[in-house]
Amino acid sequence: MIKRKLFTRAHKTGLAPGTPVHIGEKNEEPVAVSVMEYDADGSSFRTELSLDELIALPLPSAVTWINVDGVHDVSTVTRICERFGIHSLVQEDIVNTDQRPKVDEYDGYLFVVLKMLRRQEMPPTPEGPTANSQRQAAVDQHLIEVEQVSLLILDRVVISFQEFAGDVFDPIRSRLRNGKGSIRRRGADYLGYCLLDAIVDQYYILLEQIETRIEPIEEVVVLDPSPEVVVQIQALKRDLLYLRRSLWPTREMVYRLSREESSMIGADTRLFLRDLYDHVIHVLEILEGLQELASGSMDIYLSSISNRMNSIMKVLTIISTIFIPLTFVAGIYGMNFVHMPELGWPWAYPATLGVMALTAAGMLRFFRSKRWI
Amino acid sequence: MIKRKLFTRAHKTGLAPGTPVHIGEKNEEPVAVSVMEYDADGSSFRTELSLDELIALPLPSAVTWINVDGVHDVSTVTRICERFGIHSLVQEDIVNTDQRPKVDEYDGYLFVVLKMLRRQEMPPTPEGPTANSQRQAAVDQHLIEVEQVSLLILDRVVISFQEFAGDVFDPIRSRLRNGKGSIRRRGADYLGYCLLDAIVDQYYILLEQIETRIEPIEEVVVLDPSPEVVVQIQALKRDLLYLRRSLWPTREMVYRLSREESSMIGADTRLFLRDLYDHVIHVLEILEGLQELASGSMDIYLSSISNRMNSIMKVLTIISTIFIPLTFVAGIYGMNFVHMPELGWPWAYPATLGVMALTAAGMLRFFRSKRWI
Amino acid sequence: MIKRKLFTRAHKTGLAPGTPVHIGEKNEEPVAVSVMEYDADGSSFRTELSLDELIALPLPSAVTWINVDGVHDVSTVTRICERFGIHSLVQEDIVNTDQRPKVDEYDGYLFVVLKMLRRQEMPPTPEGPTANSQRQAAVDQHLIEVEQVSLLILDRVVISFQEFAGDVFDPIRSRLRNGKGSIRRRGADYLGYCLLDAIVDQYYILLEQIETRIEPIEEVVVLDPSPEVVVQIQALKRDLLYLRRSLWPTREMVYRLSREESSMIGADTRLFLRDLYDHVIHVLEILEGLQELASGSMDIYLSSISNRMNSIMKVLTIISTIFIPLTFVAGIYGMNFVHMPELGWPWAYPATLGVMALTAAGMLRFFRSKRWI
Amino acid sequence: MIKRKLFTRAHKTGLAPGTPVHIGEKNEEPVAVSVMEYDADGSSFRTELSLDELIALPLPSAVTWINVDGVHDVSTVTRICERFGIHSLVQEDIVNTDQRPKVDEYDGYLFVVLKMLRRQEMPPTPEGPTANSQRQAAVDQHLIEVEQVSLLILDRVVISFQEFAGDVFDPIRSRLRNGKGSIRRRGADYLGYCLLDAIVDQYYILLEQIETRIEPIEEVVVLDPSPEVVVQIQALKRDLLYLRRSLWPTREMVYRLSREESSMIGADTRLFLRDLYDHVIHVLEILEGLQELASGSMDIYLSSISNRMNSIMKVLTIISTIFIPLTFVAGIYGMNFVHMPELGWPWAYPATLGVMALTAAGMLRFFRSKRWI
Amino acid sequence: MIKRKLFTRAHKTGLAPGTPVHIGEKNEEPVAVSVMEYDADGSSFRTELSLDELIALPLPSAVTWINVDGVHDVSTVTRICERFGIHSLVQEDIVNTDQRPKVDEYDGYLFVVLKMLRRQEMPPTPEGPTANSQRQAAVDQHLIEVEQVSLLILDRVVISFQEFAGDVFDPIRSRLRNGKGSIRRRGADYLGYCLLDAIVDQYYILLEQIETRIEPIEEVVVLDPSPEVVVQIQALKRDLLYLRRSLWPTREMVYRLSREESSMIGADTRLFLRDLYDHVIHVLEILEGLQELASGSMDIYLSSISNRMNSIMKVLTIISTIFIPLTFVAGIYGMNFVHMPELGWPWAYPATLGVMALTAAGMLRFFRSKRWI
Repeated sequence: MIKRKLFTRAHKTGLAPGTPVHIGEKNEEPVAVSVMEYDADGSSFRTELSLDELIALPLPSAVTWINVDGVHDVSTVTRICERFGIHSLVQEDIVNTDQRPKVDEYDGYLFVVLKMLRRQEMPPTPEGPTANSQRQAAVDQHLIEVEQVSLLILDRVVISFQEFAGDVFDPIRSRLRNGKGSIRRRGADYLGYCLLDAIVDQYYILLEQIETRIEPIEEVVVLDPSPEVVVQIQALKRDLLYLRRSLWPTREMVYRLSREESSMIGADTRLFLRDLYDHVIHVLEILEGLQELASGSMDIYLSSISNRMNSIMKVLTIISTIFIPLTFVAGIYGMNFVHMPELGWPWAYPATLGVMALTAAGMLRFFRSKRWI
Repeated sequence: MIKRKLFTRAHKTGLAPGTPVHIGEKNEEPVAVSVMEYDADGSSFRTELSLDELIALPLPSAVTWINVDGVHDVSTVTRICERFGIHSLVQEDIVNTDQRPKVDEYDGYLFVVLKMLRRQEMPPTPEGPTANSQRQAAVDQHLIEVEQVSLLILDRVVISFQEFAGDVFDPIRSRLRNGKGSIRRRGADYLGYCLLDAIVDQYYILLEQIETRIEPIEEVVVLDPSPEVVVQIQALKRDLLYLRRSLWPTREMVYRLSREESSMIGADTRLFLRDLYDHVIHVLEILEGLQELASGSMDIYLSSISNRMNSIMKVLTIISTIFIPLTFVAGIYGMNFVHMPELGWPWAYPATLGVMALTAAGMLRFFRSKRWI
Repeated sequence: MIKRKLFTRAHKTGLAPGTPVHIGEKNEEPVAVSVMEYDADGSSFRTELSLDELIALPLPSAVTWINVDGVHDVSTVTRICERFGIHSLVQEDIVNTDQRPKVDEYDGYLFVVLKMLRRQEMPPTPEGPTANSQRQAAVDQHLIEVEQVSLLILDRVVISFQEFAGDVFDPIRSRLRNGKGSIRRRGADYLGYCLLDAIVDQYYILLEQIETRIEPIEEVVVLDPSPEVVVQIQALKRDLLYLRRSLWPTREMVYRLSREESSMIGADTRLFLRDLYDHVIHVLEILEGLQELASGSMDIYLSSISNRMNSIMKVLTIISTIFIPLTFVAGIYGMNFVHMPELGWPWAYPATLGVMALTAAGMLRFFRSKRWI
Repeated sequence: MIKRKLFTRAHKTGLAPGTPVHIGEKNEEPVAVSVMEYDADGSSFRTELSLDELIALPLPSAVTWINVDGVHDVSTVTRICERFGIHSLVQEDIVNTDQRPKVDEYDGYLFVVLKMLRRQEMPPTPEGPTANSQRQAAVDQHLIEVEQVSLLILDRVVISFQEFAGDVFDPIRSRLRNGKGSIRRRGADYLGYCLLDAIVDQYYILLEQIETRIEPIEEVVVLDPSPEVVVQIQALKRDLLYLRRSLWPTREMVYRLSREESSMIGADTRLFLRDLYDHVIHVLEILEGLQELASGSMDIYLSSISNRMNSIMKVLTIISTIFIPLTFVAGIYGMNFVHMPELGWPWAYPATLGVMALTAAGMLRFFRSKRWI
Repeated sequence: MIKRKLFTRAHKTGLAPGTPVHIGEKNEEPVAVSVMEYDADGSSFRTELSLDELIALPLPSAVTWINVDGVHDVSTVTRICERFGIHSLVQEDIVNTDQRPKVDEYDGYLFVVLKMLRRQEMPPTPEGPTANSQRQAAVDQHLIEVEQVSLLILDRVVISFQEFAGDVFDPIRSRLRNGKGSIRRRGADYLGYCLLDAIVDQYYILLEQIETRIEPIEEVVVLDPSPEVVVQIQALKRDLLYLRRSLWPTREMVYRLSREESSMIGADTRLFLRDLYDHVIHVLEILEGLQELASGSMDIYLSSISNRMNSIMKVLTIISTIFIPLTFVAGIYGMNFVHMPELGWPWAYPATLGVMALTAAGMLRFFRSKRWI
């Protein structure tokens, strides 16, 4: 299940455009800023920087990656942005976590916003894993957290904004630290690409998880179609739609990054972005496959239901059409007329039973000819 | 519920093109014109201006915003338009409130027309809030008023036309008065953008309201599917379609404003319009999400109905197939044949009852094997 | 109901391309030609012109509008066309009234063909309005006549071709006569625009009429869903599809007229055509709204049917499941076994009745718990 | 019914591209070649030409039309093609009669391939028209033969390839012979256009025939919905889909011929091709109309079925709910309890009958209130 | 049935982009490399080449085709690619067999990836063809293997990568050996085209096989609609969707190869690629036809089900409505009232039977009038 909310914008109405107002879920933690500087020779990583220290940081000669956790603190975001001369509309978009994925090119920097998916980690339960918490865990296994990530790609600086600590960027951090791959030899644009790539990779994992949700549904719709399964299929469809709506503009965004001639993106990195574009297309196709599986499940469900109805009706009809005529015959000879000569005949009773048996047999043959039994 | 009407154009047929004829709902109030002049240093606001005074107003050196409430008064609209040299086709479009959102560029001015949504305010009930009026209020909470707004964006003048007093522009008026934000330092194109932005923001609010209408429907279709809920879903779908039809050309209109090279729009304002375009796209996506929720509700409804039918049929079939054969057996021994030796056997009655009980038990096992009970 | 036929082209197969052959419904009246000449100062109107007079008419210095009623007379059409140097393919298209709306530009003239809708006028019934004829009239109120209009727009001449006398151009004729509006001061292109505008305006009227047909259907599908209403909805859908198929190429045609650089259309008239284009788009949107109403009616119909089935099944099930077990009990004590001790007990009869009443009450509680009653 | 087959290509796999291998139905007749030469002054027509004579034919100064019946003879096709320097890929496409309609431009010639439809002629039955053969004929009336026609349009030569003798080109042959129309005064491109025009005209005839198949279906689905009619509708839909799939690329092909600047097509002929393009569009629209009729029939069918079910259930429910309670009452007084005081009352029997009648009347009123009867 | 799996990418997450990691099914065999060199004069074919020998191979003056079976061996792929200066992203795509068909142009080479379909060969069963293994074979006949083929087209070298030995290229190998066709006289681009052509040809064969799966389904849905057939139709639809998703990007890829100006593809080969493009389009259309057959089967299935239900209900209703009233009459005269004068009448019994017969006959006439029997 994807965890998401529609956030109300009512309190924002009437403000001047470009006024940053936080919209979205709020982190309880204080704002955390980390700074990573690197070049081909090495890297330095600093956390627990105060905002003032950050602002006072000299412009790097190498590449710097500033990561900000906690966009609900509008003033921090504003000050960092102003330090680098970011437009007020961009500031507004960073703190409003209800954005559509997009890329905007400004003079001297690119602004990229997209959705990061992450499997939600469970808080440790103090009393150990009870049966109850295990069941809970099985449900949570499907809980996917959606978070907005904003990237500012400047000449030698990349700034990433998110609300919650914990992200999918740890492999990149370790590559930066131990210098594996070519990442330290390349510029800020390549770092931006790496961050996007890490986020898109996560969609593959997620779709594999969702596929495991579809398989049991496909069995259930044949064996035991119930209204609950329709609700489940609808929930699944909604999740897929949500992902699709998030991926579709991501596709467009990556396409524009990889094809349009922006001076911020080197020809080399463009090649990697073209590859990333192929990935996004591929994810979209897997997604469409899953959507068709879900629709197919609904079709199978509906035909299961009508088959079930069919077989119920068959039983009712077979029993009724056999016994109702027989009961009528029994009713005839239960009448109390004085003048009913048959009643006195010695073989009347067994003959009546025989006629009844023959009628029933005839009915059964008729049903067999209709392939009902 | 969106309040709207199809207006008849029958009385307009046969007139020369460009003849302004009012089409739409009519305001009872007299025409009201307000004029706001402002520059970076201050602003002046004048209402209750006579038409002649307005016409005689000198062309401003700063920015002037003229707002006209009451487009049913064709002659007023015509005179104001002629004062500023507006084409007769534009005059016709202003008074015809059944327009499609669009932007037309003319020599020296832009003509923008779109739909403003507004939650309808209740007239105060004199006898105080009774239970009845409260229920009424709960219904009206969903009543949304649609009104056409026409904007003329000239070099240093913005003229806005609407039919009813009361609009979503009050926050802009107060920003102009107290000089918050950069609005007073910018030109008429920015004011035009602000008016559009205020109208589009209102769509967010509206969609949140509509979402609250969908939630109870989703519950009802599972618990108590009735034909009334189908009518409700259809009404909802129709409202969403109406909004979509209003938003789709709005999207195109904002796109053209933000991308096409019109000399009326400064490069700076174009940046804000690009942002507005993102908003419109976002609203459209929320809308599509709601449309899919509504369609999904319809699917759940249909499957609820067939499940309900299924369970009704199951009960009927179980009762019938158990008792019809038993009744037949009872009928057999109710026959009045003289020669029925079983009737005289001492254990015949309890044996018959026993056979009946076994038959019933067999039937129940069969139903259990079919998962019907 | 739209009156239309598919005309057979079988007799045309095998002829050389460009051979004019009349295809379509045939007027009984003789061909009627009218000529209107006008300039800013005045206008002259002549009917009952013989073909030879028409051909001999000098080329006007002002604007001339020639209207021909009766395209089934191929020779007349041919001679008029040849007088003005019209291509044989155009001649073929004029007499074939089964054309798709389109505009073709030729050297020196534009050829426009589209569908004119008109409410059919009833022939006067000699015996006065009887009850029967009134009912007839109520039906005919919905009868819409579709006729093809071909326009040739030359430099200073407009020629319009139609089959039947009576059209939607009378307001234009009177504007030409009394000089209202700017029509007499403008050229042949503006006259062509006016004719198109008059035809498109008629679509609004027609759609309002169709809407009045949908409203009673919407009620009927809820209250009394019958197969007849499905046939009605299908007929409505077919009419709307027909209109859509006629309007869609009209839209394209007007678009090409308003945007493409044809030397036949002045920049001034192009502005009016842009406005006409907005009208056509608007008509198309109203049409799509009506199509969705019709589809929605079908959905409501289907769900009404299944609800009705549901309630029928409920009644059957309630009655059956209450009385079938009771009848079985009665059957038990109707058996004629000699040894049935209960039969002799004094309170057996009222006790049996009591058990039956309790069973029935239990069943009713069960049904209430299932929300069936 | 359209007669068509999917031809297996299995025997072709693995051959070098450009190897001509015949795929398709095979004519039993020997290959027949006819040659028609013409210019403005006259025409000569030769059949029964040997292949060697054909190859040795001098290049004409006027226009020559070579028609080949029997593309299964690969060597003939190859030799003719090589005579005119046709590319091996084109040769392969000519003998493979399972092509998609298309136009390919090569250096010095155009290659056009499309599907010719023709009503299949019945072989004469020797024993005269019996009742049986007449019924057969009525069925065959709907049998439509689909054949692939390939056209090579060179500078002064048109070569047409088909498999079966008999085509829709006879009117063109007679126009060439008796010099009607302008065909003899025009070039090879115009002849090519005439052949295409004759083929497209045939689609109109065919669609009229198909329409006659839809009308009885529309009646049947209301009056007597049976599974057979669904199979018929599906067959109809399949035919329409087949035609659509054949027409859609034909549309594109004619569009490219009429718009693209190919030196093979004169400006004059291009005008005629533009007209042909309008025809193809028109045929496609008629086709879409028929498709919607077919879909509508399916909808009416489904609603007829559920209405029928509804009325069956109503009858069952009315009969059951009236008689089941009455039978229960009769069962009560059929019990054999010794102590049933009512049995001895003198008016008990008529009173019971009266109660039964009242119950039945009450039921009937209930059904009437529900609008079931 | 198409054999395919979703491969997990989980182990790949977090690696640097361009790191080749094998994703997909794994061949058990060792990697096999074959090299074929050819020019117009002859060809040489070498297998069992060690990797070092391959790397040391001099750059050919003629055309060389290197085929690699076993892409799971990442190091081999890497070394070969590095020998020819292939980009690391391409290396990554070659070993990841879960790619979307595409063409990427790099400096000096084209990278083409697509899906090869192949009927899976059965391993020989040692105990001979038993009845059981034959049945197995009939099932396997439908098992289609999907394998990814990557092609690198360099100036005079083509390198093809696949996982499993055995492919559809044997006819090309023999053409190369015996010099049939023009293949030896043409360059590496033509060889690339031949490989693509062989793969696309295979789709025709496959679709013919799938068609044989649809035909029995179409019969079954009419004769014996069961839920199993729905599952089969869904499986079929899924296969078709899979093929469509594989073919759609193949179409785009071939289009780009045939139209875009890449210096790697000669004008001559481009003509063949245009032909291949027509083939792909044709395959796609056959595929769409099959998809519509499958959808149509589902429609027929659903209507079969409801017809079946209808006929079941008819039988139940006929039997019930005939016998329930008759049973009631019998019940009346089974009552034990003391005062029932009819019971003593001599003709009462036959008269009652007569009334019953008349009632039944009336019912039957009613049913006939309703066309139920």
